[in-house]
Amino acid sequence: MRRSSFFLPTLRENPTEAQIVSHTLMLRAGMIRQSSAGIYSWLPMGHRVLKKIEQIVREEQDRAGAQELLMPTIQPGELWRESGRYDDYGKEMLRIVDRHDRELLYGPTNEEMITEIFRGSVRSYKDLPLNLYHIQWKFRDEIRPRFGVMRGREFLMKDAYSFDLDKDGARKSYLDMFVAYLRTFARMGVRAVPVRADSGAIGGDMSHEFHILADTGESEVYYDAAFDGYSLEQMANADLALVEELEGLYAAADEKHDPDNCPVESDQLQHRKGIEVGQIFYFGTYYSDPLAATVANQDGESVPVEMGSYGIGVSRLVGGLIEVSHDDKGIIWPDPVAPFNVALINIRPADDKCAAAADDLYIQLQNAGLDVLYDDREERPGVKFAEADLIGLPWQIIIGPRGVENGVVEVKRRATGETEELTPDAALNKVSAT
Amino acid sequence: MRRSSFFLPTLRENPTEAQIVSHTLMLRAGMIRQSSAGIYSWLPMGHRVLKKIEQIVREEQDRAGAQELLMPTIQPGELWRESGRYDDYGKEMLRIVDRHDRELLYGPTNEEMITEIFRGSVRSYKDLPLNLYHIQWKFRDEIRPRFGVMRGREFLMKDAYSFDLDKDGARKSYLDMFVAYLRTFARMGVRAVPVRADSGAIGGDMSHEFHILADTGESEVYYDAAFDGYSLEQMANADLALVEELEGLYAAADEKHDPDNCPVESDQLQHRKGIEVGQIFYFGTYYSDPLAATVANQDGESVPVEMGSYGIGVSRLVGGLIEVSHDDKGIIWPDPVAPFNVALINIRPADDKCAAAADDLYIQLQNAGLDVLYDDREERPGVKFAEADLIGLPWQIIIGPRGVENGVVEVKRRATGETEELTPDAALNKVSAT
Repeated sequence: MRRSSFFLPTLRENPTEAQIVSHTLMLRAGMIRQSSAGIYSWLPMGHRVLKKIEQIVREEQDRAGAQELLMPTIQPGELWRESGRYDDYGKEMLRIVDRHDRELLYGPTNEEMITEIFRGSVRSYKDLPLNLYHIQWKFRDEIRPRFGVMRGREFLMKDAYSFDLDKDGARKSYLDMFVAYLRTFARMGVRAVPVRADSGAIGGDMSHEFHILADTGESEVYYDAAFDGYSLEQMANADLALVEELEGLYAAADEKHDPDNCPVESDQLQHRKGIEVGQIFYFGTYYSDPLAATVANQDGESVPVEMGSYGIGVSRLVGGLIEVSHDDKGIIWPDPVAPFNVALINIRPADDKCAAAADDLYIQLQNAGLDVLYDDREERPGVKFAEADLIGLPWQIIIGPRGVENGVVEVKRRATGETEELTPDAALNKVSAT
Repeated sequence: MRRSSFFLPTLRENPTEAQIVSHTLMLRAGMIRQSSAGIYSWLPMGHRVLKKIEQIVREEQDRAGAQELLMPTIQPGELWRESGRYDDYGKEMLRIVDRHDRELLYGPTNEEMITEIFRGSVRSYKDLPLNLYHIQWKFRDEIRPRFGVMRGREFLMKDAYSFDLDKDGARKSYLDMFVAYLRTFARMGVRAVPVRADSGAIGGDMSHEFHILADTGESEVYYDAAFDGYSLEQMANADLALVEELEGLYAAADEKHDPDNCPVESDQLQHRKGIEVGQIFYFGTYYSDPLAATVANQDGESVPVEMGSYGIGVSRLVGGLIEVSHDDKGIIWPDPVAPFNVALINIRPADDKCAAAADDLYIQLQNAGLDVLYDDREERPGVKFAEADLIGLPWQIIIGPRGVENGVVEVKRRATGETEELTPDAALNKVSAT
């Protein structure tokens, strides 16, 4: 993509409405634009990141055997009356009345709807286990939306729902999702700590939240330092054995952490801030009972199905990853979720030799399968460098008259700031290798 | 995907609520499930088709230079007051009041919102031309939703919006989209006739609707038979020259067709039924005027930007393609949008040799990059054959004991019903070639 035609409305000043760094940087880097309180448009730069994250989530759900479908955003109120949550849910639920005076709502979550689909289609234990997921926009009418996409009203979530005949099966489905979650976050280049969570009023006795660690996080996480001994690569290739090891390690959010009864010695205990980006949850027959979602078991008896749910905050992750990975110049995208792989910067577009060299490398990089943002604008080099650091693409390749004369380009790694001069071919090889 | 674990709740009987064949077949083939009037869940089989269509639309928008972003589903009412459409839109607009008593609405279209994004970001003619699109769920509170996804309330639409300095530029943007539309529909394997349309109250003097031809269509289309001389392949590789030729050919929907003043001789005039699946529309400054979306021109004067909009009914197309392509046994998917390429049917799974042969071919087909639905269930062959015809995958490969003995499988092309016996390798080559 040529920068001269790319729709990228960056801001030079920090917007006053942003209270946290990810919100500031997403606005300044032209990723999002607020439409109303807690509701955002995703401009091309932000949309590209959102899609990359969504695709990693999808691939790991598919690998775990979950099947993708898509439920609508608008749900009938009557379904929530059946589960008993219509009146309980409170003002966070966006309630709507249609032209025929029927009660609708913008789905904040989908337990009722997926259970309704299940009960209308599945009759026998032979059709189990089953795990269905979708990646769909949700709405929660937060009283004070803030922190940009981290606590918005309209947000993109992946939610999966498992169905099993019995608790052993449900435990297996739960662990499969545990594996998928470890892999998912590690593939995005971040460490997510699985923290044992309360299952609250709903009951059930298995639930974990996944927190990515950032100094600006809103939660406090205590965990066994042994966790830090696991590499990102190990997590990205997680299996059931790894989950078993990690489940055995202590990890708790502050509301559950009791210093006097912590099984981990204090010098072995890590205390960090975190951002919750996912939760997995076994809740048994909490919904299948009231909604009468049953299957015939091996003896032909009708039994309520055992369920779990598994959420990942897809749009929230865009902000969360920035909280984890930035510096005072801007965003530092992990390679797997970067909107483009390379910023190709021609500092002298009016110079024919520079233009020819840059055009040529642009084509070669694209032919190698890389996404390239090619800054071909007539702007001062300082403006281009500052923007490249702000938008945080993993690699910068800088082409200027002196280098062209000597047959070299400058290659800069955004994360480390390291630069080196390389021939165009060597630069291509270098950035292709990540 | 193994059929035994695939979530595919097919129906053996025709559902009574469906009035048209695509609705019947989508319900019977387990593609969709109604959640409330005119609102559907897309089950895995339907979701796969929706995603394939969406991806073809996306690729052709990108190729035409349009840039993808994503606007939210929920819009502020005040923006529609600015354009004057808030009160005019009527009961089809789903209006919502949030917890702070602010007026919101579920977007039925996005002219206002994209214009608001534009005016907040673009200042100069130098940033033009610009074409921005998104593929997002919309809502229109139809008084009588019907025909399944063909006239639903929550529906998926691609809408693009072009911005130009002057009318010449806008005409160029319009023609670029015309090219993209010809390519898009042809790539889905169907002929779409571009029909000159009324631009109605909004004004402007360029608008075309695209109708795919089906005997069950709700519109009537009259067009020059010369149109049928253009092959699908020509359309799939359309360029500006082709658009110029086609624009010159007569085509009109019945409300504009006047038999007494038709420039085409009656024996050269085709009269068919059609389904509208897209529209392109130049509307000048209709929105940029009231919303004050201006740019500085070459003389530094502030002028309202020239706009056009370009819609494709993505979810509607799923039904539309079935209307065009089915028989009395079920759906006949065009290859490019088929949910799977191949139905691999083992008619005797309990036979070890059949199972081994089918398992082996399943792996080979997948390794060749094909999507395969492998019917490994213990069911009567007749049930499997009927289901394969119903769901309409382009190829069926049937494995049975007699064939395995002779080293052959049966390959059936769904569209023609032609079958032949081939070695597994030859079958693999055959289905890979489409």
